[in-house]
Amino acid sequence: MVDIANRVWNHKWKIDPIVRSLIDNDFYKLLMCQSVFRNKPDATVTFSLINRSKDIRLADLIDEGELREQLDHIRSLSLTRGESTFLRGNTFYGKRQMFRPDFMEWFENLRLPDYHLEKRDGQYELTFEGKWHEVMLWEIPALAVLMELRGRAVLHDMRKFELQVLYARAMTKLWEKIERLRDVPDLRIADFGTRRRHSYLWQDRCVQAMIEGLGDKFIGTSNCLIAMKRDIEAIGTNAHELPMVYSALAKTDEELAQAPYQVLADWHEEHDGNLRILLPDTYGTEGFLKRAPDWLAGWTGIRIDSGDPATGAEIAIKWWKDRGEDPREKLIIFSDGLDVEKIVELRTQFAGRAKVSFGWGTLLTNDFRGLTPDDGLLPFSLVCKAIKADGNPTVKLSDNPNKAMGPADEIERYKRVFGVGEQSRMDVIV
Amino acid sequence: MVDIANRVWNHKWKIDPIVRSLIDNDFYKLLMCQSVFRNKPDATVTFSLINRSKDIRLADLIDEGELREQLDHIRSLSLTRGESTFLRGNTFYGKRQMFRPDFMEWFENLRLPDYHLEKRDGQYELTFEGKWHEVMLWEIPALAVLMELRGRAVLHDMRKFELQVLYARAMTKLWEKIERLRDVPDLRIADFGTRRRHSYLWQDRCVQAMIEGLGDKFIGTSNCLIAMKRDIEAIGTNAHELPMVYSALAKTDEELAQAPYQVLADWHEEHDGNLRILLPDTYGTEGFLKRAPDWLAGWTGIRIDSGDPATGAEIAIKWWKDRGEDPREKLIIFSDGLDVEKIVELRTQFAGRAKVSFGWGTLLTNDFRGLTPDDGLLPFSLVCKAIKADGNPTVKLSDNPNKAMGPADEIERYKRVFGVGEQSRMDVIV
Repeated sequence: MVDIANRVWNHKWKIDPIVRSLIDNDFYKLLMCQSVFRNKPDATVTFSLINRSKDIRLADLIDEGELREQLDHIRSLSLTRGESTFLRGNTFYGKRQMFRPDFMEWFENLRLPDYHLEKRDGQYELTFEGKWHEVMLWEIPALAVLMELRGRAVLHDMRKFELQVLYARAMTKLWEKIERLRDVPDLRIADFGTRRRHSYLWQDRCVQAMIEGLGDKFIGTSNCLIAMKRDIEAIGTNAHELPMVYSALAKTDEELAQAPYQVLADWHEEHDGNLRILLPDTYGTEGFLKRAPDWLAGWTGIRIDSGDPATGAEIAIKWWKDRGEDPREKLIIFSDGLDVEKIVELRTQFAGRAKVSFGWGTLLTNDFRGLTPDDGLLPFSLVCKAIKADGNPTVKLSDNPNKAMGPADEIERYKRVFGVGEQSRMDVIV
Repeated sequence: MVDIANRVWNHKWKIDPIVRSLIDNDFYKLLMCQSVFRNKPDATVTFSLINRSKDIRLADLIDEGELREQLDHIRSLSLTRGESTFLRGNTFYGKRQMFRPDFMEWFENLRLPDYHLEKRDGQYELTFEGKWHEVMLWEIPALAVLMELRGRAVLHDMRKFELQVLYARAMTKLWEKIERLRDVPDLRIADFGTRRRHSYLWQDRCVQAMIEGLGDKFIGTSNCLIAMKRDIEAIGTNAHELPMVYSALAKTDEELAQAPYQVLADWHEEHDGNLRILLPDTYGTEGFLKRAPDWLAGWTGIRIDSGDPATGAEIAIKWWKDRGEDPREKLIIFSDGLDVEKIVELRTQFAGRAKVSFGWGTLLTNDFRGLTPDDGLLPFSLVCKAIKADGNPTVKLSDNPNKAMGPADEIERYKRVFGVGEQSRMDVIV
């Protein structure tokens, strides 16, 4: 029987909000936000949406009015009492009071700042400019909104049974992946799929499937809200935006060369254990490690987010050995474009040589490939990046030139400063 | 677990259509439509919405855009194959092929004609002008749309739990009524509540409750779609619009005096058995019966729709006796403003003296009295009537002057022609 009250309730909404909570965000954004709030409270940063898949003409697919309604809804959100309690009271990685009282007080009063939106060449130009620690919180919800609106646009003409079958197939597909992963010994895997998820409900469903299907092998989710709702660990460390913005703020080439290490020095002061994870690829992994101070070799692990992941991991293992560390005590987190085959392969390759874990993103929470006739739900490469800091452009080189960003002359300068030579190009799926 | 596919499906709709089928209409409208289609195919009639409860300012409560969307949606409807099969193939009152093939062919190609809508003094002026057999089908859906939009407006600010409790209370209230009716011996009762229902789903739910709670005592519904869906009898005979329009079409006082009988002569030719039910009150029950030809006394029964119901029934019983008929073989249908107390009282009063049945309307399908803080869902008296036929105003006198309608001079003329004297006024609730 139809629940009439529930149905009446559902039909009263003018829109179906995609993001309904300020902590429907990646946990590491909150960690970084707290760090920035303390260390760079005055930096002015611009975040910008960048669609690396130009053939997906988002402005043709998605209605501007709907997009604005969703973004405006996000601006209306504030931290609820329960969310605040969760953040204040929870133990993250065994540490109590991960979030400092002064940060929480600020966060409890936060509304996200305004956005700038216009259409250009079939794409949306969506930017957020303001205090770094405020605009940075837009990245994940902005991406999630665009991904979900694109999905809704594609689903719009599907009929009821088609939709039922679509979701049944997608869940079957995910479940078959989980069944393969179940047999991988000593697997440790987390959900990193918030930013490019099919939808909030779908990500939540994927997480539930992982909980049931993988048991202890599933170690948590990057999504703070889902972690709270499903009573699992919130996972995450830090991202490229820290070295990118610190570097853009550098006044000389010497400061620039030190900027990525300054980020980690600030981080080192704040965090220990599982939060001390290097992300070495922003300006080339090899040079970064070569020039790294010794105390960085003492960190818990490394995250491999671009380039060939096995190569990156071998470089890290060799580096640890060179610095007198035992790689078997170190954690390698793979998080770039993973799917089951790659996970199994990497797990096998590094078994016994290092601790390994996986941050599974888009192909966990948005794998609808082959499930619609014209593959309209194919995942694509949408990012939202810091492009400017205090007026200077940011630069990212990464271990894959296809993931590089920034003005050409600045890229050349960064390559020179960080001693980056030839790099091999790899396709970016997501 | 949320059914994601179903949720996506639900959220794709731009509006939540109130009327989704051409046969979400009262069965007697279809019967009358077929009769008009044969006997008065060229009459041009205007139907108009009339809100007798002026304090309910519908135009302030209901958004004009939403109202138009709902009415436009109704204009997009046509008979589905299944609905056509149901109408063509079903047995109504034991008679096969109640609907003639020529009528069905016309009906299968019908789209409802245009409407005229404007706001005036806080009310909607909503009229339908065209071929009688086309515009007449607007009456019930137009009323249902306005009733449901008014309900939605009132429910709009209620929260989720309030709604759950509201519907729980309304169902409890209905169930308690049904439990009282269950104990009434030889009860025969039908749902007549389409036009002023709270909502389609609610009417359907009420019918299901009646089926479960009353068993054989529940004899069917006036709603053709619900009759089809729930596999129960479609109930209904004829309404005031027939004598009103026939009378307006009369060219002389003599023709006018005969018009109400001409209606029934036409009807007599088409229908027998349970469909031969007199509706005597259009121009005063007493005079109508006094001047009725003898063959009308042979009809199956009478419907009492205005004035004091017991008085009306007593008049009918006396009339049958005067004409040599046995009232115990006759059916009296009460259908005006009924609720449980009245039903029990009338059933008791006429037990053994005539067959009695009840057409329970608004207080079956829309009794939310006392369930919202400011009683915003109080039923009110909204009708949609034929006001003009071939340019002449229609007139209704009824057995209650508060239900009378038409221009004052015409009312006087009708009173004279039909010999109507003093009448007693009664409040009109619904």
